[in-house]
Amino acid sequence: MAGLDVIWADRQDLPASDRGLAYGDGLFETIRVEGDQPLLLRRHLERLVAGARRLAIPLPPDQLQQLVGEALEHYGRPSAWVLKLVLTRGSGGRGYRPPAQSRARLVLSCHAMPPLPAPGGVTATVASTPLVVSPELSGLKSLNRLEQVMASQHLPAEAYEAVFTDAGGRLLEGTRTNLLLRFDGQWWQPPAEGVAVAGVMAAALADGLTAAGERVRQRPLPLSLLSRPECEGLYLTNSVIGAVPVRRLGCLHLPIDNTLATICDPLKLPK
Amino acid sequence: MAGLDVIWADRQDLPASDRGLAYGDGLFETIRVEGDQPLLLRRHLERLVAGARRLAIPLPPDQLQQLVGEALEHYGRPSAWVLKLVLTRGSGGRGYRPPAQSRARLVLSCHAMPPLPAPGGVTATVASTPLVVSPELSGLKSLNRLEQVMASQHLPAEAYEAVFTDAGGRLLEGTRTNLLLRFDGQWWQPPAEGVAVAGVMAAALADGLTAAGERVRQRPLPLSLLSRPECEGLYLTNSVIGAVPVRRLGCLHLPIDNTLATICDPLKLPK
Repeated sequence: MAGLDVIWADRQDLPASDRGLAYGDGLFETIRVEGDQPLLLRRHLERLVAGARRLAIPLPPDQLQQLVGEALEHYGRPSAWVLKLVLTRGSGGRGYRPPAQSRARLVLSCHAMPPLPAPGGVTATVASTPLVVSPELSGLKSLNRLEQVMASQHLPAEAYEAVFTDAGGRLLEGTRTNLLLRFDGQWWQPPAEGVAVAGVMAAALADGLTAAGERVRQRPLPLSLLSRPECEGLYLTNSVIGAVPVRRLGCLHLPIDNTLATICDPLKLPK
Repeated sequence: MAGLDVIWADRQDLPASDRGLAYGDGLFETIRVEGDQPLLLRRHLERLVAGARRLAIPLPPDQLQQLVGEALEHYGRPSAWVLKLVLTRGSGGRGYRPPAQSRARLVLSCHAMPPLPAPGGVTATVASTPLVVSPELSGLKSLNRLEQVMASQHLPAEAYEAVFTDAGGRLLEGTRTNLLLRFDGQWWQPPAEGVAVAGVMAAALADGLTAAGERVRQRPLPLSLLSRPECEGLYLTNSVIGAVPVRRLGCLHLPIDNTLATICDPLKLPK
């Protein structure tokens, strides 16, 4: 049973029996590629392998690495693009219960870069419903993303992103971005255990800032911090856009911090 | 854009771009069929239509009804079987954000009946992690079912089901069943707003019992109720198995109630 079933999305469909469709029983990664050079590839693949281990989806790392190499060649183009990997537990099992031995499936697809946010900053809203993160799933970039879909659906046209809080009003993450707060000369991120998706860019930035001698901490981020004079700026980060400051969150006008790119350029981080 | 894309799972694959795969952006129903006679069909279709409305997935009820009729004919067989409907938002959109106008997709598949539980009662375990239900998703039989998959994965061989509590230790539901407690001559179910899946059989039984003059209430169900002398029996219910008593939950031996089928037979309820 070892090995992956492979679906090249530009020329193959998916068996309707796939457990990714049935239950969201799988994981995904979206990797920015410049020509044939993927950004933060090692971190993406490590997250996928670690997530598969948590879900007990068999994923041979060597075959994964080789298929990603083939995809970079197959889909490669001169300009920037996005390589998406969807890993599912494959077909089979009895209802929710996975088969004793499953053959995982990897779907490889190629996507245009999304429109990049204005580098001078974006408007965001606070999602109308708190994000509820199961400890079983926290950090996993799983295929269970209906809350993110629903928050995106209600996004006003002028807003770039909806930012979730938890039930206690503490900032968690955007629908497709993580948060990085500059506060009193330090860098703060919400605690990893409460976050739905452990962002590759968030981790790379934390490491990059730390390596540059900056102080990076995980701590609860009540919304009220943003109204304090020590608040120097809030960034949205992900591995496709890098980082963009939030100019306005709901009714709240935020200061724009310009130090991040000078300390640690998100798009020039080591792999 | 009106109308559904239809996938007959016995002869068609699914576009890999489907949002059901990407995000679990959809819903499903599993309907027990005896020959060509579906059980509780009206309730199943009403739940699917109501769920689609909550997610703003366009679903023409007339076309749904017609396709289900065709599926009953196409897949029909002399013995009992299960018709599964998977409704997704189809393809398209920008990331999580659904397209302004989407064309939904309906996947129709046929499955063997699962092995039925021993009518004399089953063993169940309490899931090791509480179930966390987002208010945005509560009650929806959505394609986001990874917590159910994980709880099923850890199920000991002798256990028929894992039963979730909430973080406060109150009984919620099984991975694929709802709960019905007979307590002090009444019938109790957990409050609808806290439950992940609003079961078709649970609702039909509540109506059937009420029609038979029984008292049915929704109220919080702390685990401790099961150790009280007024506890007369706990049932697992769903639309495929009907109802089965729980003989043992974890270490706790439960009394077996035999009154349900005599008052209101789950498999003979009105459509």
